[in-house]
Amino acid sequence: MIFKLEATDGRARTGSIHTTKGTIDTPVFMPVGTQASVKSLDPKDLTALNAQIILGNTYHLYLRPGVELIKDFGGLGKFMGWDGPILTDSGGFQGFSLGRLMKTDQDGIEFKSHLDGSSHLFTPEKVIDYQESLGSDIVMPLDWCVELPNDLDTLKMAVKRTTSWAERSLNVKSNDQYALFGIVQGGTEKTLRELSAKQITKLDFDGYSIGGLSVGETKSKMYDIASFTAQLLPENKPRYLMGVGSPEDLFESVAVGIDMFDCVLPTRVARNGSLFTSNGRINIVGKRFRAMNRPIEAECDCYTCMNFTASYLSHLFRAKELLGYRLASIHNLRFITNLMTNMRNSIQIGEFKDYKKRFLNEYRPTNESIRIDQKQKWLDIKNENFGK
Amino acid sequence: MIFKLEATDGRARTGSIHTTKGTIDTPVFMPVGTQASVKSLDPKDLTALNAQIILGNTYHLYLRPGVELIKDFGGLGKFMGWDGPILTDSGGFQGFSLGRLMKTDQDGIEFKSHLDGSSHLFTPEKVIDYQESLGSDIVMPLDWCVELPNDLDTLKMAVKRTTSWAERSLNVKSNDQYALFGIVQGGTEKTLRELSAKQITKLDFDGYSIGGLSVGETKSKMYDIASFTAQLLPENKPRYLMGVGSPEDLFESVAVGIDMFDCVLPTRVARNGSLFTSNGRINIVGKRFRAMNRPIEAECDCYTCMNFTASYLSHLFRAKELLGYRLASIHNLRFITNLMTNMRNSIQIGEFKDYKKRFLNEYRPTNESIRIDQKQKWLDIKNENFGK
Repeated sequence: MIFKLEATDGRARTGSIHTTKGTIDTPVFMPVGTQASVKSLDPKDLTALNAQIILGNTYHLYLRPGVELIKDFGGLGKFMGWDGPILTDSGGFQGFSLGRLMKTDQDGIEFKSHLDGSSHLFTPEKVIDYQESLGSDIVMPLDWCVELPNDLDTLKMAVKRTTSWAERSLNVKSNDQYALFGIVQGGTEKTLRELSAKQITKLDFDGYSIGGLSVGETKSKMYDIASFTAQLLPENKPRYLMGVGSPEDLFESVAVGIDMFDCVLPTRVARNGSLFTSNGRINIVGKRFRAMNRPIEAECDCYTCMNFTASYLSHLFRAKELLGYRLASIHNLRFITNLMTNMRNSIQIGEFKDYKKRFLNEYRPTNESIRIDQKQKWLDIKNENFGK
Repeated sequence: MIFKLEATDGRARTGSIHTTKGTIDTPVFMPVGTQASVKSLDPKDLTALNAQIILGNTYHLYLRPGVELIKDFGGLGKFMGWDGPILTDSGGFQGFSLGRLMKTDQDGIEFKSHLDGSSHLFTPEKVIDYQESLGSDIVMPLDWCVELPNDLDTLKMAVKRTTSWAERSLNVKSNDQYALFGIVQGGTEKTLRELSAKQITKLDFDGYSIGGLSVGETKSKMYDIASFTAQLLPENKPRYLMGVGSPEDLFESVAVGIDMFDCVLPTRVARNGSLFTSNGRINIVGKRFRAMNRPIEAECDCYTCMNFTASYLSHLFRAKELLGYRLASIHNLRFITNLMTNMRNSIQIGEFKDYKKRFLNEYRPTNESIRIDQKQKWLDIKNENFGK
């Protein structure tokens, strides 16, 4: 993997990541394909919406269909029919997010499967091996992610363990077919972020991730720590802010020099009928869309907006027709990939700040109470149907 | 609408139906798009699998989003982005199949909405008006469909009322933009079928439907009555066997000179993971598919088989990924449209009987107990989530 820094505008920057499976223009948003599928979309859909790289979740794929099966099929890309680059996570975050962490010690993380309750020990070494089996192009080492806020001792331990696991991960990397990123932890403690960044950037990783954010802290705290951490990372390597992806978060993070993002938000909220527009998210089952004889977003060039009215989409959601989930997911992801293209263009001509201001002036971020509602909806579904 | 009879082979026949929205080669299978969507598929999918005409359900569309809204949008095709021909049913069958019939008398059928319990009287006149609003290309008059077996008096009444409603429907047809078909009832009583066919074919319809079959009778009885009724219908008009669509049923019915078919079976069983192959239906979550590194059906040219292994499809169903439902639906519908193409070709060269024999020799129809299981599964889902 080669990273080329191309243009800067303030701290914002554009670049390109060259992999054996294609070039990725940064800043980039990576759609999430947890279980070998970006939910409801096929590979043609992903290409059409200009997804340059997608993300797979090692924990889920390890449990089902199994990394050995995927290896036998020539890797995750071959298995799911996607021929572009793939980034895989380490599974560490799932132990945290699924609440399936049984125990963690210096050796690794022991999970309880969300499918059958069986136990699985993920060590740094195993996790590299799993991702090599998946044929990942950008691999994450096992890290220890803790929720926020948290006590200083826990945050310190997370940094210490993450560094030790990073070293062990580098030691077992068996070939140069893929890139391996280091992950910075440290919660909301700047001294710990500084310590973690120092330790991790001393190691020769191909890129650097900012982990342990978007896990319970406020938005302003998240922006502050992302900004603080980004400037501790080397200029000449890609910077990846893990798990972040609302439009406003993307702008704030690109502004401080972050290059890569992933988030389930665009597809998850799409399946709830929540769609991005330049004015903010709308709820497609709302009364005002029932007879609206134009696309959700007049300027949008996605398959959904080019072919269907808001009224039709509203009908599909009211009637709980499967097609609705796909059309909404296509729109939301295309909205985000268009946003990233526009950001890159504006950086290249030195007008990122103006573009950001203009966008955020029109875009009303989803307020905290709706966000919590949506999150609760998702948690309810998750509890019914664990791990989907 | 113009129908041209082209070739015959025994009683089997090919032809073409010319509508303002395109030509339909017969015998033809029409995918069902109950609620303005062939479940999980988009219009591009339908074109790719060579759907020449699709079916919409007046009852469902009347209730949601409403026929007036669809009329305002320029018709069902415009509303859902499908530019080919559309056949709509009259709603009569839904009163029967959804068990939502409140009462029926000579005036019409009164329904209780599956959405909110409200009452709706469907008269022959209203039903023509609704379908004109939907912009249907082939319209069905209101008929009275009764379950089988049934007593002679009920069957007689169904014939009488269906004829009277047919006359009233013809009287209110306001223009020649669409075709109107007559429907033959009469259950499994040949004398009644004869009577109904005589009465209906005396009226100047553009085509003739065989209704009241596949509603509880055995397969052999269904074949017998379809065969008996088909030869009572004029040669120069299309014959439509309503609600029939398993591979073996299609062969038997084409063999006796039927031209048009519709059925939810291919898409409904697809969503249960049941997929057509030349040897019969398979259950994709079965153990033998877990690691199968080839398509479900090696010879199939559908998007699913051209791009994905049985293993991947099996994984999607195990993981309950939405993409699985769409890929399975594409495959099953393409299997059927390919079957119809092959039947047409074999009729044209006088080899229909050979082709039928060859196909049925390899194809093991789903046995009665599995069929009943599948039906029960569907009824369970329907009772939970009525009308979907």
